[in-house]
Formats: sequence, C-alpha cells, structure tokens
Amino acid sequence: MLARISHDELASLFIGYGYQPYFVEGSDPTTMHQEMATTLDRVFAEIRAIQQRARQKRDLTRPRWPMIVLRSPKGWTGPKEVDGKKTEDFWRSHQVPFGELAEKPQHLKLLEQWMRSYRPEELFDDSGALRAELRDVPPRGARRMSANPHANGGVLLKDLRLPDFRDYAVSVPTPGGADAESTRVMGSLVRDVMKENLSVRNFRVVGPDETASNRLGALFEVTERAWMADRIPDDDHLAPEGRVMEILSEHTCQGWLEGYLLTGRHGLFSCYEAFIHIVDSMFNQHAKWLKVTKDIPWRQPIASLNYLLTSHVWRQDHNGFSHQDPGFIDHVVNKKADVIRVYLPPDANSLLYVTDQCLRSRDLVNVIVAGKNMQPQWLDMDSAIKHCSAGIGIFEWASNDADGDPDVVMACAGDVPTLETLAAVSLLRVHLPSLKVRVVNVVDLMTLQPHEEHPHGLSNRDFDTLFTTDKPIIFAYHGYPWLIHRLSYRRANHPNLHVRGYKEEGSTTTPFDMCVRNDIDRFHLVSDVIDRVPGLGYHHAHVKQWVRDKLVEHREYITRYGQDMPEIRDWKWT
Amino acid sequence: MLARISHDELASLFIGYGYQPYFVEGSDPTTMHQEMATTLDRVFAEIRAIQQRARQKRDLTRPRWPMIVLRSPKGWTGPKEVDGKKTEDFWRSHQVPFGELAEKPQHLKLLEQWMRSYRPEELFDDSGALRAELRDVPPRGARRMSANPHANGGVLLKDLRLPDFRDYAVSVPTPGGADAESTRVMGSLVRDVMKENLSVRNFRVVGPDETASNRLGALFEVTERAWMADRIPDDDHLAPEGRVMEILSEHTCQGWLEGYLLTGRHGLFSCYEAFIHIVDSMFNQHAKWLKVTKDIPWRQPIASLNYLLTSHVWRQDHNGFSHQDPGFIDHVVNKKADVIRVYLPPDANSLLYVTDQCLRSRDLVNVIVAGKNMQPQWLDMDSAIKHCSAGIGIFEWASNDADGDPDVVMACAGDVPTLETLAAVSLLRVHLPSLKVRVVNVVDLMTLQPHEEHPHGLSNRDFDTLFTTDKPIIFAYHGYPWLIHRLSYRRANHPNLHVRGYKEEGSTTTPFDMCVRNDIDRFHLVSDVIDRVPGLGYHHAHVKQWVRDKLVEHREYITRYGQDMPEIRDWKWT
Repeated sequence: MLARISHDELASLFIGYGYQPYFVEGSDPTTMHQEMATTLDRVFAEIRAIQQRARQKRDLTRPRWPMIVLRSPKGWTGPKEVDGKKTEDFWRSHQVPFGELAEKPQHLKLLEQWMRSYRPEELFDDSGALRAELRDVPPRGARRMSANPHANGGVLLKDLRLPDFRDYAVSVPTPGGADAESTRVMGSLVRDVMKENLSVRNFRVVGPDETASNRLGALFEVTERAWMADRIPDDDHLAPEGRVMEILSEHTCQGWLEGYLLTGRHGLFSCYEAFIHIVDSMFNQHAKWLKVTKDIPWRQPIASLNYLLTSHVWRQDHNGFSHQDPGFIDHVVNKKADVIRVYLPPDANSLLYVTDQCLRSRDLVNVIVAGKNMQPQWLDMDSAIKHCSAGIGIFEWASNDADGDPDVVMACAGDVPTLETLAAVSLLRVHLPSLKVRVVNVVDLMTLQPHEEHPHGLSNRDFDTLFTTDKPIIFAYHGYPWLIHRLSYRRANHPNLHVRGYKEEGSTTTPFDMCVRNDIDRFHLVSDVIDRVPGLGYHHAHVKQWVRDKLVEHREYITRYGQDMPEIRDWKWT
Repeated sequence: MLARISHDELASLFIGYGYQPYFVEGSDPTTMHQEMATTLDRVFAEIRAIQQRARQKRDLTRPRWPMIVLRSPKGWTGPKEVDGKKTEDFWRSHQVPFGELAEKPQHLKLLEQWMRSYRPEELFDDSGALRAELRDVPPRGARRMSANPHANGGVLLKDLRLPDFRDYAVSVPTPGGADAESTRVMGSLVRDVMKENLSVRNFRVVGPDETASNRLGALFEVTERAWMADRIPDDDHLAPEGRVMEILSEHTCQGWLEGYLLTGRHGLFSCYEAFIHIVDSMFNQHAKWLKVTKDIPWRQPIASLNYLLTSHVWRQDHNGFSHQDPGFIDHVVNKKADVIRVYLPPDANSLLYVTDQCLRSRDLVNVIVAGKNMQPQWLDMDSAIKHCSAGIGIFEWASNDADGDPDVVMACAGDVPTLETLAAVSLLRVHLPSLKVRVVNVVDLMTLQPHEEHPHGLSNRDFDTLFTTDKPIIFAYHGYPWLIHRLSYRRANHPNLHVRGYKEEGSTTTPFDMCVRNDIDRFHLVSDVIDRVPGLGYHHAHVKQWVRDKLVEHREYITRYGQDMPEIRDWKWT
C-alpha cells in the first residue's frame, strides 16, 4: 500500500503519526549508500538535539522524532529475471525466487552470478578468510548488533524490589466476615511496587483506559499516565514521565509490554477479560518465543508476562453479552505447559499472594483472573498463603465431612463461582443437614492437569484424595465448563465430574441473573446435588421444588426492581 | 489521542489515509448545526461529483473521498458539573455521570434540568404526543435509519448461482489412485462461483496476500485483485473492479467480509491457519451477533461467514514454528453450537462438497481446514458425497473388520492425519496381518459432540456403533489433541480413546518430521496400536523395535538429505 500512494500522501501519513519523515529513494547502490549515510548523520543530529533539549533545558514538548523512509527495489541486486520472469523490483523476489539447483543448471548459474556480484575476491583472502582491513570495520563486544544486551534482556534484568505483600492483607476475622474489592487491594500492592522501583525505572503497568475503573487507581498516588501530547489544566494524572501506559488498543499495550520485558524490565497488563482475545495471536508468538529460547543457553531469563484479567464475564452489569468471554484461558493452556500459568484467586488476600508470586517469576506467561467488585472475603492472610502455595485445597470451614467420607465434593474456581458454591453449601446445610459436603477451591488451574502434563499438576494420588474416586463432584468454574473436563479427563473420578460454567448465555442484567442464565447459581448447584448424589433424588422433591420456585421468584423480582433480591445481595456466610 | 495532536497533524493523518478532511468544531449548538449542515451539503456534492466522474467519464483515478471531523465537547449539553466535578467536555461524562436518583434529590434535579434543556414543551402537545409538524420531519419507510435494508442484509440477500460442484471432481479410480492439491481443485469451483455471479456482483473472496499461494489462483481467470491506488505496467491482476480483496491485515479482511455479509452479500475468507487467531476477537463478536439476532423475528438470515484455513500447521516447511497453530478451531467451538461448524475434509472431492454446502448455508460461521499441498486422493465424488453428508464414516476400503468386531479403531480428522493413519494401517497389514482394523474418518468435527450439545452431534447409539464401546481408539487429529477429548468425554468408549495431534512441537523441518515430532506419524501410530490393543504388547516387541529403528533412520536421513525418506515421499496406498 505504502509503495503505491503518492509521495505527498506518504509524507502526510507519517507527519500525522507524529514523525518527521526523511526519504532515501532509488536503486543505484553507490548513490543510495551515500544518501543513506548523509541521512543517518542528519537524523542522529536531530535525535541528539531533541535529547539535549529535554535533558538540559527540561523542554518536554513532544518532539517530532525523525524517521527514514527507505524506498528501494524489492529483491534489490538479486536476479533481474528468473526463467524469463521479472524478479528484482517485483513480488516474485519475496517468494522463493528460484530453487531446484541440482536439476536446473541455469539456476545454479544465476546463483553464482548473483553471489559474484558481491565481489567475494575483494572481500576474502586466498584462504577464504575475511580480509583483515574488513575484519576491523564492524563494531566489537556489546556494540555488535548480535550482542546488544537489550536484545538479551535477561542480562540487564534486575529483580524488582518487592514490598511484603502480607502488609496489604485485608483483615478477615472469620470466613465471609469482611468485604473488599480484590483488585483495589491489589492496587495498593502494585502502587508500592511502582514506588519502590521508581528510581530504577524498571516497572510499568499497561492497559486500555481502565487502570482506575479496574480499581488499580492507587498507582496514581505515586506516578501518572504516560502522556506526551497536549495537556489541558483539568487533566487527570497525565505526564511525560508517567509509568502507567494507557491506550484503548490492546495490541499496543501488548506490544509495549513485550518490548519492555524483552529488554530486561518488568510489567503488568490489566485488561477487560473479554477483550484480551484481541492479542491472542501476539500472545501465541510470545509463548512460542519463550518455549524456544528456554533451550538457548546464552539467553538469560526475562521477567514473566503478567496479565490481570478483570471486569470479567460475570460482572458486565452495564455492558452485557458483547463483553463476556472467558476463553483466553482456553487459548493460553494450548501452549507449552512449562511457560503458562493460570490463577483464579477467590478473594483479595489470595490475589495478593498470587500477584507477588507472578512478579517474582521468570520466563512465564501468568494469567490472573480476579473481579473488581465488592465481595465477601474468605481467607485471612495465613490461610491464603497456605491455600495458594498448594494452589488447590479443601475449605475446611465450609466442609462437614471431616469425620468420614463426603457425599459430594463441591469444587469451585474463580471468585463468583466460589461465592455461589459457598451460598449453595449454606442452603444445603439448611435443607439437607445430614449431607456430608467437601468444598474444594482451585486457585492454580494447572493443578487439575496430570502431573506428567504440567509441572503444577497434582499427582493422581493427591487428586484422588481431594476429589475422591467415586463421589459426585459438582464443579462451578469461572469459564467455559468443558475446559475442566479437558484438564481432568484422565483422573479416576472424571466420570462423576459435573461442571457448571459460562455457556455463552448473557445479557445486560443483574450479577446474580448472569449466574442463573448459565446454571451456575446457588439454586442450580443445590439442584445438581440432589440430582447427582445417590439416595437423594425423589426423597427430596420438596427441596427441588423450593429451588425451582426460588428461581421464578428471582426472575419476577429482577424484572420488577432491576436488581437482585435482598436475600441474594445481602447473603452472608455464617 | 486524536483530540490532543495539533490540527495540522490531524489533517495530515487523514490526508495520509487518503481522505479529504473537513472540520466542524465548536460547542455552540446553533452555530454547530449550521456548520454541520453546510459541510454535509459540500461533501455530498463532492461525493456526487466523484461518482459522476467514475460512472460517466469512466475516470477511475482513486478519488480523495471527503470525510468530516466533528470536534464537539464530550457529553455535550449534559450537566457542566456533577457533585462539584467537571463533567461536560470531560472524561466523566463517558462514565455513568450520575445515578442513585432515588437517594440523591440533587441528582434528580440535575436530570430534570438536563431534560428540560431540550424544551419538551415545544416538542410535545398537551397529550404528550409529538407535535404534528415534527412528526412529518423524519424520513419514512425504508429511508428511516432503522429500516435501511442494508442494515438488515437478509432482506437484500439473493442466493448465489452455484455451478454443480460434481463437475470439478478429481477422478479417483481407486483410493489413493490419484494425487491432487485440494485447494487448487476448490479454486476452480470458486472461480466459477465468482463467474456465475459477476453480473449480480454479490460474491467476494478476501484474504491476506495469499490467494494464489493458497492455490485459489484460478479466480484470476475471471476477476482481479481490487486495487484503487497507483498501478504499474507489470502489475499482476490489479484493477478497481476486482472482486478478490487482498491485504496483509487479517483484521481488515474480516471487517470487509463481515460488512459485506451483513449488507446481504456472500464471501469467503482464505487465510493461513496460524494467523486467523488475529481475528479471534472479531469472530467472537460476529458469532455473538448471529446468536442474538436468531431470536429477532424481523432479522432475515444472512450468508454464512466462511473461512478456508490452509497453509496449515503440518505444512510450514519454509516458515516453521511461528506459523503453526491449529487452535482457531478450539476458539470457535466455545461459541454457541447452533452458529458454528468445523469441517476437515480429507481430500479434494470432500472439500468440493463441503465448500458447496458452506456457500449455501445461512447464519453460520463455517471453518474449513484443508491443505494446499499435493497429496493422495481417497474418495471419488460419489463416495465423497456419501461420506460428507454424514460428516463421519468408516473407510470400508481401508478396514478389514467387516466380518466381525475390530480389534482397534483408527480414527482420523484432517488431511495429514488421514494420510498418516492410512499409512499406519498399511504397515499394520504387513506386520500384524491378523489384526482387525476399522478406519473412521471425521469430516464434520461437530459429529463428535453429544447430539444434545450440537445439532450435528451423533446420537450415542450411532457413535457407539462407529467407535465401539470397548475397543481401543487411536485418533489422529489435525489440531490440539485435547479438543477431541473435550468433544467426546461423555461417550461410552471415551476411556479407551487415545488422541494424537499437534502438541506445540515444531520447527522449520520436513513435512514428515513435523508428524514425528508430534507423535502423529505412521510409526508412532503403529506403536500406539501395539501398546493399547490387549494381547499385543510384548508379543510384538520385534514390530515395536522395527518402528523405533525406522524413526532413527528417518532422523538420520533428513539430517543428511534435508528431505523425507523416499519410502515416505513415495508411499502409496495399495
């Protein structure tokens, strides 16, 4: 495209992008080399002048950085024609311009002519070595392009100075005995990570225009949004030196952060869960890069690519169906197990632990999914550390099977599913008090995979101990339910696993109604227990009917009042 | 961004994009309305002039289409301040600017003032109806924005004129008795679809710069690549009226095609398999749109969104690991079952059938995965029609279990896995001649899902008939192997299902080595049979050793010669 619009349009385009374009155009190598050298001298001088103006005169007016447009023939200096077809300065030179050298002597001849056009006899001595006067031309040591430490960022990487995440703990006197917005709590930790590393300038937070609305606004107590363009008096935390980089382009955020990590720094990408799919393809390439470079001995480990996915599928109260998609997790777990991690902390203290762990890790892609809404807190910091270190565990305080086998395992992963599971358990206590229930919560999704498939995978023995080998499991999962089957189909108790999750039913509706539409709410979970635990069924028809009536009551209420029933909004674990 | 760069930069940017920008800027409503009206008149006149120049004088020079830049305050005419905070002309007016009307009387007052600023007493009569003179102002019928038929494309949709796909059949005298490039055969059909509908102008093919390299080049016998910018004499099939739209931006291709379908036309998007992930998020929104509009009675069905994914994971001989990702299928099947279809035709005739079916369908997203490389053909057209109509079936000619139960089911989906499965079967014939093998090929991936989950899903009875309820199944699948588990975990014989597929092992290597690296090659499949069929195992240690030695021989050969062993390259089904 750029080759076929007018010179004026091309210049306008780059001026519109904020650059000062310089053109080097032509096809005669000697002239072009001279022009390129002159132009490089010119733009280097401009770059230096801009830097001096900023550094010495503190003039931070957005500069027009120079750029060079090199317009040379495609396949320049290659064969003009191959097999009678135009090749140099044409699309064919972008393909494999010629091959089959063993069968086609004329192609071999062409290759020889091409290679001889570089005049190897002037470059190499009789023994085939590069001539001494040429050997001295290229730069040495770290100035060689191949040895530039910024291209091997791990060499430059300094550990982050991390405050103690325990200092940010929400006080949780009893499970459910406090409320908090998980990402706001995380925001205080991230603010202090920013603050502690301001002088080293090696930590940034990127994201679409949602840092504040995702409750990470505490960051603006210590830094600003990076902003080089015009400013007006009412502006809200915009400054050229800001270390939060916001732009409503997930692609740009991802590109910025990848470049930042690859050059030896640290960062966090906070994003609406549904829209992180925008960078699926970019994530693929980064994950592939990590896989391949793990086997290259001179590559030093780099900081992990950390995603916080919030404003998630279950809480799109104002946005609705278009903003609901928990499938990035499915996309991520297709990549090599040793570079990917997925965490679903159920509350603020577990989110603090996971955040700290991700910021310390190397050479990984960490996906953290956590909501921003006010919700009950389950774990005090000690419990959160124990729970998250294992990545999966029994909520003892919510289970009543300690003295024997459970009748049912209620499993959950994700903050909203955990809430609904616990609410279902509290209903079971009332309606089926003799039922033995074990509540298992999953923070580290990869624990579900076989140990041979993922380094965090539980051994079969540990998995069977938690999930039993023969009791029904009712699993409430944050995302698409079949992912849980995919991760655990080899487990002994898989035939008894019943998963609820998001099944692409959504609208602009109340938070609880989102659960109801996808059958993951407390009432459906109770109903699932009655259907699946042997010996319940028709003996408890009255409970199933009560559940059914509750769901009708719910629909009537939200249609009339536009919000959830008080018994839902005000529900507390006791 | 655009609000904070200079007027000159903004104008340059849009000139660089090829437009002629006009600016309407300010905040006084009366002045702005007048300016907007004047500007609209001006740009309408320009548009008419451009159209006339093209239609009457046949001057197809690329025009500079006019565009209007409207620069008005954000939240214009809304409250200047809410709770003492600046709101109009500020980011807050993009949020929920105020709420809690029941609890905050000052907010209710603000709302009243705002609404009264529209002077309802001048707009409505005493009974609350719009005044007659205003009722006459808006356009009527199809000129109403809400009733524009282009916004309900199904109203404008005309069926494609489709040639008989049978006419393009490859002659396949016996299974494996012919070779063809599947997408090149499809290209002849697509060429004639283009030709038959040229006069109606309602069919387009979009894609990155790969129409020819994906072997759909026959299209250029009847149309060109759409091209409005400068042309040079050597140009290859570029013309303003071209109906193939190529741009190396999958986003743009997807956007073009969505708009084209939504306005009542038909199309096909051909893409490298790995890079279709670039449009994951756009696909999501289109699939959600299809799901929601199916329930809107006045919305007429539109043509399906058809993807041809080729240059797929198994044949990236020159590109390697970065170009290998079969996960778009996983992404697609997360969406509602009644809008998505996935086809993996094993050869050219089955691809012809599937293409015809997709072009006839409505309101779906169809994903076709098919290779472009020369490969053996298995099905004559009659067989292909029978096989693809069912979507799944036994290759009788490759099976030897007709007179009793099979010892093993060899299942396959995708062209390369089908080839390797058949090659494995031919090895089994030689080395384990008494083994009863049933070969099941899957074209329509959704047949694997339970019938309750997808309209194409097989009933359990049919599934069990094909796959047995107790024999080992060795399944060679085109993509990530766990997807097959995810689709079939509820089936009776799932515990005996063993799937091979792409497991993120790749490089720039030979085609067969790609299979070997992912354990989906004929030798690994034979080895899987020995490991899993009861009663084989150590009795056939010599076959396993032969297989192991073959894999070493393969590695030695490709390291030395850079291509696959002759017995692999020249293998034929007999």
